[in-house]
Amino acid sequence: MVKKAVLILSGGMDSVTLLYHIIAEGYTVFPISFDYGQKHRKELECAKQICKDLQLVHKVVPIPALNDLAPSSQTRKDIEVPEGKYDDDNMKQTVVPNRNMVMLSLAASYAISINAGVIFYGAHAGDHTIYPDCRETFIRALDVALSLCDWTPVRLKAPFVRMSKGQIVKRGIELGVPFEKTWTCYKGEALSCGVCGSCSERLEAFKIAGIADPLKYRKEVVS
Amino acid sequence: MVKKAVLILSGGMDSVTLLYHIIAEGYTVFPISFDYGQKHRKELECAKQICKDLQLVHKVVPIPALNDLAPSSQTRKDIEVPEGKYDDDNMKQTVVPNRNMVMLSLAASYAISINAGVIFYGAHAGDHTIYPDCRETFIRALDVALSLCDWTPVRLKAPFVRMSKGQIVKRGIELGVPFEKTWTCYKGEALSCGVCGSCSERLEAFKIAGIADPLKYRKEVVS
Repeated sequence: MVKKAVLILSGGMDSVTLLYHIIAEGYTVFPISFDYGQKHRKELECAKQICKDLQLVHKVVPIPALNDLAPSSQTRKDIEVPEGKYDDDNMKQTVVPNRNMVMLSLAASYAISINAGVIFYGAHAGDHTIYPDCRETFIRALDVALSLCDWTPVRLKAPFVRMSKGQIVKRGIELGVPFEKTWTCYKGEALSCGVCGSCSERLEAFKIAGIADPLKYRKEVVS
Repeated sequence: MVKKAVLILSGGMDSVTLLYHIIAEGYTVFPISFDYGQKHRKELECAKQICKDLQLVHKVVPIPALNDLAPSSQTRKDIEVPEGKYDDDNMKQTVVPNRNMVMLSLAASYAISINAGVIFYGAHAGDHTIYPDCRETFIRALDVALSLCDWTPVRLKAPFVRMSKGQIVKRGIELGVPFEKTWTCYKGEALSCGVCGSCSERLEAFKIAGIADPLKYRKEVVS
């Protein structure tokens, strides 16, 4: 029997590793990416390229509403992307309120319409201090709501929720994930900056995994 | 203290009555309406007019994604709006999968960004047989998820969930709701058809309430 799943694919290293992970588990995956006006639009190009390489049907869905309703430094030109590590207070500016539930709800509409019983997303252990909607309690609660939103239940799974980003790098290496094709930087430039919170976290993860990050950075960085 | 609330306002009789109901309860209401390509776009015009009359800040938010991801007779020209009562099997064609969770998620993003602690929507007792996402179990589950989606909890309330549409009409009359300015018909015509499932249900509700529906219909109908 075909196991169909919808995956939220940002084009970043976590969701791309999750894509490879669930393909290895035997799922037929329907990746979905969201365009909510993020400055780091290059991640969408990365998501497209990865799906093309894997010959997957890929949906790219605009949500202009999110930018309008919930401004953040990820979408507004007038709010600067802060630099530094994720535990700094100013990184909270990067939070798009309730972004994950909006994306997961739309992913569920898609899942129901193509008879896929599962939605996956790449929340992981490192996310929880900044993002409430990456916590295990939130995931469990939304899983219950999704199981009731239609007559046929849709389940929500986040298999990396207890994994660190370093462990995700290791899993990705096992699966042959082309990390050089993934995008992490929050700034909208041609090359990754290497200094924003998102880049810092990625570089730290590769360092912990003891593997060199194959991505090109603007500045010379030690991974 | 100002009690801010976000209300999902379709422009139909239930959500308009709910608007009047929560204003009477002392809420400062921020109504939000969604444009998901519905054929019955006249409801959006009705929602706008009602907010204008009440001098409320009204958001109209496009969600083109919903039409793309989850086709239904409400949005697609190639799927006809069925006629008859809501308990008929073919009325299931009118279901936009997971529409309520998508709308409620976006309403929560808005609520968080304006510091409103509550979201209201007009699910009622008559909805449950067709719409899974109007059931009390679903509402309770989503309330839990919404209370976890941000560091400050957002609550979900559907005070009409145990009321019939007839009872809503009665409550609306008490509150002075201008029912002639609300829109119910699922067909996208200048006057309400009086025969689609949605019109049938509305007319039935006015009949039960013992009140004449002030709305003009295409056909002569007995309310």
